[in-house]
Amino acid sequence: MKIILDIMGGDNAPSATLVGLLEACRTWQNVGFIAVGNEEIIKKTAEEMSLSLSLPNLTLIPAPSVITMEDAPLSVVREKNDSSMALGLRLLAEGEGDAFVSAGNTGALHAGSTLIVRRIRGVRKSGIASILPLSKPLLLMDSGANLELKPEEYVQFAKMGSVYMKGLFRIENPTVGLFNNGTEPTKGPASLQEVYKLLKNADGVNFIGNIEGKDVPWGKCDVLVTDGFTGNAVLKTAEAMGSFFFEKLREIAGKNAKTKAAGLMLKPELKAVKKQVDPSEYGGAPLLGLSKPVIKAHGSSDSTAIFNAIRQAIGFVQSGVTYEIAEMIANENKPAADAAEKTAGKEPEAKKEATGND
Amino acid sequence: MKIILDIMGGDNAPSATLVGLLEACRTWQNVGFIAVGNEEIIKKTAEEMSLSLSLPNLTLIPAPSVITMEDAPLSVVREKNDSSMALGLRLLAEGEGDAFVSAGNTGALHAGSTLIVRRIRGVRKSGIASILPLSKPLLLMDSGANLELKPEEYVQFAKMGSVYMKGLFRIENPTVGLFNNGTEPTKGPASLQEVYKLLKNADGVNFIGNIEGKDVPWGKCDVLVTDGFTGNAVLKTAEAMGSFFFEKLREIAGKNAKTKAAGLMLKPELKAVKKQVDPSEYGGAPLLGLSKPVIKAHGSSDSTAIFNAIRQAIGFVQSGVTYEIAEMIANENKPAADAAEKTAGKEPEAKKEATGND
Repeated sequence: MKIILDIMGGDNAPSATLVGLLEACRTWQNVGFIAVGNEEIIKKTAEEMSLSLSLPNLTLIPAPSVITMEDAPLSVVREKNDSSMALGLRLLAEGEGDAFVSAGNTGALHAGSTLIVRRIRGVRKSGIASILPLSKPLLLMDSGANLELKPEEYVQFAKMGSVYMKGLFRIENPTVGLFNNGTEPTKGPASLQEVYKLLKNADGVNFIGNIEGKDVPWGKCDVLVTDGFTGNAVLKTAEAMGSFFFEKLREIAGKNAKTKAAGLMLKPELKAVKKQVDPSEYGGAPLLGLSKPVIKAHGSSDSTAIFNAIRQAIGFVQSGVTYEIAEMIANENKPAADAAEKTAGKEPEAKKEATGND
Repeated sequence: MKIILDIMGGDNAPSATLVGLLEACRTWQNVGFIAVGNEEIIKKTAEEMSLSLSLPNLTLIPAPSVITMEDAPLSVVREKNDSSMALGLRLLAEGEGDAFVSAGNTGALHAGSTLIVRRIRGVRKSGIASILPLSKPLLLMDSGANLELKPEEYVQFAKMGSVYMKGLFRIENPTVGLFNNGTEPTKGPASLQEVYKLLKNADGVNFIGNIEGKDVPWGKCDVLVTDGFTGNAVLKTAEAMGSFFFEKLREIAGKNAKTKAAGLMLKPELKAVKKQVDPSEYGGAPLLGLSKPVIKAHGSSDSTAIFNAIRQAIGFVQSGVTYEIAEMIANENKPAADAAEKTAGKEPEAKKEATGND
C-alpha cells in the first residue's frame, strides 16, 4: 500500500505535514509514502527542523506550485495543475498510490478529486464526510462540498456514509438521521420532506428520522445527512463551541492559584473531553463517492492530526469501502441496466466492473 | 406598562411560568401583569405550590385551551383561537397590554403574531431574533421563523436587528455579519452573494462581511443575519454543545473525590461560563418587525428564564425599538411613496403614521 500526502496543504504546512508524515513512516514501515510538494521548501524545512528525509519507505515527488486557501476550486486543473494537490491527485488516479491525503483548500480538493480521480460509476455526487467524535463517532455528510443536494443525492450519501461507518468503525447497521429543524416528517422545506420519504423507503438505510441541532452531540445516529451548506454550518459551529469552552477553561485555570490547582487536578479528564470535541481525533474527513480514497485533513491540522489523517487513509484502503460502495451502487442501478440491456437484445453482463469513472 | 404572559406555554408550564411571573410582579411593582391561561389549572398549580395569586399588579384572564408543541402553526387562529396564546396576542393587538411573552410553540407564536398583532407597515417579514450571550451578546436573526428569505428580507433583518441591539444593549453602530460558509464575497449560493452586495450598500447597516460557523462564539459581530433554517441549525447546535460540555463536566466532577473537590473549587467560575452559553440569560428571543413587542421564551424555560424574558419584554417596551423600526422603514419607503403621491398630484403627508398594520 502507498499513501500520497500533499506536503504543502494546510495552515501549518510544510512543518506539520512533514512531522506527521515522518511519524507515519516510522509507525507503518510496511506502507510506502509519497510526499508531494515543493522540493526546495521541503528540504529547507527539514534542515531547519533537523528532520531526516532518508527513510526507506518515503519517496519525495517534486511539485513546483501550491494551491492556497484563496485559490478558486478549478485552479487545481487549470493554472495550478503543477501544484502538489494536482500532482498528488494525478498520482492517485494513475495508480501510483492507494489514497491521497491533503489539508489544503477544500473546494479545490473536492473539484480536483471529482475531475482527476473521478467518481464511482453511478454516484451522482461525491461529498465530504466529516467525523465528529462527540458521544460516539458521527459521520456528517455533506459537510461542505455541495451547497445544495437533490433528494436522491441525500439517499446516496446516507448509503455511502453507512458503508463507511460499517467498514471503518465496525458499526453494524448504522443508524441514519436527516438534519432538519424539527423531528416531525412535515418539518423543514418541501425538499427535505421529500428526502424524509425517500430515506424511509430506501433499501439498506437504517433511517431513524429527523435530527435537530440540539441532538447533534448526543449520539442519536451514526450517519447524519445534510446539504454542504448546512453541514458546514453545523460542523464549524460545533467545533467553534468546543474551542470556546476550552479557551474559557484556560482563562479560568489562569485566574489564580486555586483555580490553577483545580485545573491541574482535572487535566487528564478534561483532555479526554477535548478529544470528544476535536475533529482531528479521527484525522480527517473522507471524500465519499470517489473511485479511490481521498482524505481531507482539517486546514488547521497539526502534526498529530496529519498522522491521524494518514492512519484514516490506511484504514480507508484496508476496509475496501470504495469497492463496497461501487458494488452497492452497481447493484442499485442493476435492475434498470438489465432491463435496458434486455430491451436492446443483450444479456446482462455476468459481473459488472465494480469501480470506474463516469 | 402592562406585560401579558402566556402561562400555559413551554415544557415547564404552568409551574415555571407562574413562579417566574410572581417574581416579576414583586420586582416591578409599577408594571401591570396579565396572566393568560386555564384558570382551573393555574389555581390548582398555585395551590399545590402554595403560591398566592393575590397581588395588586396581577390580573388573571382565563383561556380554556392550550397550544401544544405538536399543534400546527395556524391552529392559533383556527381550532385553538381560544388558547392562552391566541387570547394573549389578541389582548396585545387590542391594546390591553404592551408586550406579550410566551414559551410555547414557536411556529404558532410567529404565525399568530403576524396574523393577530400584525407587522409594522412596510416590513416584509417578521423574524425571531435569538440572543446568544457568548463572548458578547450576539443577535441571530432569523433563528427559526422563516425557512427561506429573499435577499431584501435579509437587509431588513439586519436593520431591525441593529435597532434592537442599539436600543436594548446600548451598542452604537452595531456590526452586522452575514452567515455564510466562507469569508469571501463569492462564497455560498448565488442568493447569499446577492445579499452580500445589498448589505454592503445598505444605508444604516454597519456590514462587516461574511461570518462562518467557526466565528460564532467569538464576538465578531453584534447582529448575524441568516435564514431561519440555518439560524435554527446554528443556534441549536451551539446550545447543544454548551449542554454537552457541562454534562461532561458533571460526569468528571462525579468521578472521584479528587475531581469532585476540583469541581467545587471551580464552581463559581464555571457558573459564569455557563451563563455565557445559556440562551435564557437574556430570557428570550424578540420577534422583530411586529407592531407590538412579542418575546419568545425558550421552550425549556425554567422560572428564571421566564423572569428574564419578562425583563426583556419590559426593556423592549421602554426602548421604543418598535417605534424606531417603524420610523426607519417608513423613511426607507418614503422616497418611493413621495414620488408616487406626487405622480398622483398629491403632496406627501407631513408625518406618516409610524406604526400600523399591513
